[in-house]
Amino acid sequence: MWERLRDKRMADKIVTAEEAASWIEDGMTIGLSGFTRAGDAKAVPLALVERVKKENKPFGVNVYTGASLGSDVDAVMAEAGIVKKRLPFQADPVMRKKINDGSMAFVDQHLSHTAELIRQGAMDAIDYAIVEAVAITEDGMIIPATSVGNSNIFVDYAKHVIIELNLAQTAELEGIHDIYTPEVQGEREPIPLTRVDQRMGTAGIVVDFDKIKGIVLTSQLDSPSTIVEPDAETAEIAAHLIAFLREEVKAGRLPENLAPLQSGVGSVANAVFNGFLDSEFTDLTVYSEVLQDAVFDLLDAGKISFASGCSITLTADKMQYVSENFAKYRDKLLLRPQEITNHPEIIRRLGLIAINTAIEADIYGNVNSTNVLGSKMMNGIGGSGDFARNARLSIFVTKSIAKGGKVSSIVPFSSHVDHTEHDVDIIVTEQGLADLRGLAPRERALKIIENCAHPMYREQLKAYYEEALTRGGHTPHVLEKAFSWHVRYAQEGTMLEKKAAVV
Amino acid sequence: MWERLRDKRMADKIVTAEEAASWIEDGMTIGLSGFTRAGDAKAVPLALVERVKKENKPFGVNVYTGASLGSDVDAVMAEAGIVKKRLPFQADPVMRKKINDGSMAFVDQHLSHTAELIRQGAMDAIDYAIVEAVAITEDGMIIPATSVGNSNIFVDYAKHVIIELNLAQTAELEGIHDIYTPEVQGEREPIPLTRVDQRMGTAGIVVDFDKIKGIVLTSQLDSPSTIVEPDAETAEIAAHLIAFLREEVKAGRLPENLAPLQSGVGSVANAVFNGFLDSEFTDLTVYSEVLQDAVFDLLDAGKISFASGCSITLTADKMQYVSENFAKYRDKLLLRPQEITNHPEIIRRLGLIAINTAIEADIYGNVNSTNVLGSKMMNGIGGSGDFARNARLSIFVTKSIAKGGKVSSIVPFSSHVDHTEHDVDIIVTEQGLADLRGLAPRERALKIIENCAHPMYREQLKAYYEEALTRGGHTPHVLEKAFSWHVRYAQEGTMLEKKAAVV
Repeated sequence: MWERLRDKRMADKIVTAEEAASWIEDGMTIGLSGFTRAGDAKAVPLALVERVKKENKPFGVNVYTGASLGSDVDAVMAEAGIVKKRLPFQADPVMRKKINDGSMAFVDQHLSHTAELIRQGAMDAIDYAIVEAVAITEDGMIIPATSVGNSNIFVDYAKHVIIELNLAQTAELEGIHDIYTPEVQGEREPIPLTRVDQRMGTAGIVVDFDKIKGIVLTSQLDSPSTIVEPDAETAEIAAHLIAFLREEVKAGRLPENLAPLQSGVGSVANAVFNGFLDSEFTDLTVYSEVLQDAVFDLLDAGKISFASGCSITLTADKMQYVSENFAKYRDKLLLRPQEITNHPEIIRRLGLIAINTAIEADIYGNVNSTNVLGSKMMNGIGGSGDFARNARLSIFVTKSIAKGGKVSSIVPFSSHVDHTEHDVDIIVTEQGLADLRGLAPRERALKIIENCAHPMYREQLKAYYEEALTRGGHTPHVLEKAFSWHVRYAQEGTMLEKKAAVV
Repeated sequence: MWERLRDKRMADKIVTAEEAASWIEDGMTIGLSGFTRAGDAKAVPLALVERVKKENKPFGVNVYTGASLGSDVDAVMAEAGIVKKRLPFQADPVMRKKINDGSMAFVDQHLSHTAELIRQGAMDAIDYAIVEAVAITEDGMIIPATSVGNSNIFVDYAKHVIIELNLAQTAELEGIHDIYTPEVQGEREPIPLTRVDQRMGTAGIVVDFDKIKGIVLTSQLDSPSTIVEPDAETAEIAAHLIAFLREEVKAGRLPENLAPLQSGVGSVANAVFNGFLDSEFTDLTVYSEVLQDAVFDLLDAGKISFASGCSITLTADKMQYVSENFAKYRDKLLLRPQEITNHPEIIRRLGLIAINTAIEADIYGNVNSTNVLGSKMMNGIGGSGDFARNARLSIFVTKSIAKGGKVSSIVPFSSHVDHTEHDVDIIVTEQGLADLRGLAPRERALKIIENCAHPMYREQLKAYYEEALTRGGHTPHVLEKAFSWHVRYAQEGTMLEKKAAVV
C-alpha cells in the first residue's frame, strides 16, 4: 500500500468509507470523480446511500460529476432519492426515470462548461470533492485513475477532499495524466497546447494537504463498458464516412493522416472508429473525451500514433487486456481534464474532425442529441456541443430508422435542438452522407432527404417539404404539422403515415 | 491622393469602377469588404449591377461579405437578381424578400466560421476580393476603412484583389486596425491576445503586389446607422441588466469594472449599452463586433476605457462628430478581423459578458434569433452564436411582446432554435430578468414565465406548461400544441387565445 500512498503524512487520514460518508450533510453539494463509468468514486457514495437508508431522515445532496458514473452509483443514489440536483451528464436508466418524472433536477450542460461555472461561483459551491486515485505521491499529489473529468476543478474549489485510493487499479496508470487548469477568465494566458501529444501540466492533481479530510482504501474496478459490436448499419455508416474523408484528402482539404479525431461515446461511435481499421489511413491521432475499445484496436494495428482523452472506458475483456499490457500503451496515451479535452480554444486550434451521434436530425440539419420525442431525456448533450461548434468538421451519425422502422431519425423538425443548423457540417446514416457545408437550407433539405433518410420515409419527407415550400421562407415549414410525426408515433406507435404503410 | 496611395508602383493600377466591374464573370465568387454598413465596397458592386443590366444576359455570382452591407449594395444586387448565393449575414429588406421566396440562396453562418471555411477550401473559392481602403502604404499594405470584417481572409485567398480607395473617409482611421490572421488549423499557434487593447498584428492587410488587379478611387461615405433612440422598454431592459450586474459584483462573481462587454447590433443592444451611462460602472472595456453610437457616448463619458471591434457603425450625426473629432478616440479603439473579434478562443479566455437580441425565447430558454414564425429569415445569426456559446455570461434581451401585443416573445417552443438551452444563461425583457445558470428545465420554465413574459401572456404560458407537466419528461411539452401560438398568429393575427383576449 505504501507504494500507492507515498506521502507518509497521510497515514492518519485513512478512514472507512462509512466514516467518510458520515461527514456529508443534508443540503451539501458533492463533486464526484468519474467520466463514462471510468475512475468514478465508488465506495463513499454507496456508503452514503446505506447510511441515509438506515437513518431514514429527509436527505438530499447536489451531485456534480465529470460525466456518467458506473458501479451503479447513479442508479443507487437515484433510487434512494438522495439526489436533489445532478449535473452535467448521466446515462443511468433509474436516474433517467427520476429526471423524466420530475422528481430529480438534472442540468444538461456542455462538459467543458461545468469547470467555468464552478470557477465563476455561478452554482452551489462544492462541500466535498470525492475522487478516485491510483496513488498519492511523496508530496501529496493525487494521481487519478482511469479518468480525469472534473476532478481537478472539484479538488481546487471544494471545501474538503476525500480520496478513494484504489489499490486494485493498475499502478501503471501513473504517468499518463496531464493536469492543466486555466486561471480565472480575464487573468488567463493562452492554453499552450498545439499538439495532441503535448504535455503542459502536472502528473497529478496538486492539493493542499489540510484540505484532504480522509483517504478511503478501495479495490473495486470500473464497471465495464456496455457497447455492442458493430453491425451491418454501423459498418455502412463508417464506410460512408471513410469514403468522404478519402475524397477530402484527394481534394487537398485534409492532410493524408487527416486531423485529430474526436468520437462520441457508445456503440455507433465506436463502430465508426472501428471502420478505420480496414482503411488506408495511418498515423492518425485522437483528441477526444472517452477512449473506447476501438482506439486500442487502432493503437494495436498501428493506425493511431497517439490518443489524448479524459477517460478510458472499455469492455470487460478489453479492460483486462489493456490493464495487463499497459506498458505498450503508456507512451501513446494522455488523460487530461475534460475542460481541456473539450476546450473550444483547443478544438478550433487543432481543427478536429468531430464525430458525434444524433437521436434525430431534421431536414435542415438541426440535431437532437438528448430528448426523445422532445421531452424524454436520454443521457445529455455531453461534449457533443463543445466539439460540434468548434471543430473543423462537425459530423453527426445515426441509423436512419429506429424501433424496427417505426421511428425515422430524419424528421421534418427536430423535437429538441441541441445542435443548430449553423453547427452541423455532415450527417451520415447507413443510407449515405450529406455534406451540408456552404449550403442554404433548401439545398440542405434535398440532400438530407435523398442521401440520409430511409427509403420508407423518403416520400413522406418530400411531401412535407413540398407542402412547406408553398408557405415559403428561408427554412420552409408547415408549423401545424412540424411535430405531426412525433405525435403520430406517440399516438399510433409509428411515424409512418397510413397510406405509406399500405404500400 | 498620393498621401493615400503611397506605393507609387500602384499608379498604373488605377481604373474606373466600370472597368473593374467588367472583369467579373458569370459564375464567379466575390468577397466584399463591409460589416454592418461600414467599410463596404460600394462602387464596383454597383457598377457591376449597372453593367449586367445593360448586357441583359444571364448572370450570377456568389457574394461573401463580412456582414450586412450599406449603400443599398445588397438591395440593388438582390433586385437585379445577380446573387446566386450570399453569406454569412445580410439585413436588407429587398434581399430578405428574395431569400424568403427561395429565389436567392443564403447561408446563415456564424461570423467567425466563414474565414475557417475559406481557409479549408470547403466553399467555392473567391475569384475577386473587393475591399475598401483609406490608404495603401509605401510598401503596398491595404489600410481598411471603418471595418475589417473578412477582408483580410478574402484578400489572402482571392485570385485577384480590387481596392476601392475611399478619399472621403477620414485618413485618421489609419493606425486603429490590428490585422492578425491565424495559420491553417493544426499548424496554428495560440492567438496571443489576453487584453482588449492588445496589438498583435499588422496595421493593415499585407497583400502580394501582383494580386492587386485594380484600384478604384471613391468618395462615398458609409450609410448611416438606422438605430432608433432608447424607449421606455429598452431602458427598463437596461435597468434590469445593470441591477443584475451590480449584484454579481456584490457577490464577488464579477470584478468592479465587470468583464469585457459584447453587444449585438441594433437599437435594443445600443439602448442596453446606453444604460451604462447613468450607472456607477467605470473603466469598462468593450470586446465586440460593431461599435455603435452608445460606445462613443460611453467613451465621451469616461465610462469605457477601451473598445475593440471589427466595425464602426454610427448614425449620421454621430458619424460626422466622430469623424471630425477622431483624434480623441484613436488611442482607445482597435478594429480587428471578425475572425478575431468573434473567436471562441478569445471570447472564452477573456470571459466576455455577451448581450445579444432574441426574436423569441421559449419556456426552457431556447432562443430564436433569425427566423420569424420558424421560416421567415430576418437578418441571420451573425456573431450571436460565437459569443453566446463561449462567453462568461450569455445574455439575451428582447421586449416581451411585439406587434402591439399580438406576438409574445416568450413562447412554448421556439419556432427556430439558434441558441439552445445549453447556451443561454440570462434572459431579460422589460418585465424582468431570469438567471438560468445551474437550473434544470422545469426550474427555468417557472422563472422565465414569471420574470420575463408579459402579464397578458403569463396565464396562457402557465396553462401550456401545466398541460405539458401531465405528459412528463425532462423538458415537458405538448408537441401537438407546441407551435399552436405561431399557427394562431398566422391564422388569426394574434398569439392570444380567445378566452384570454376577452378578459
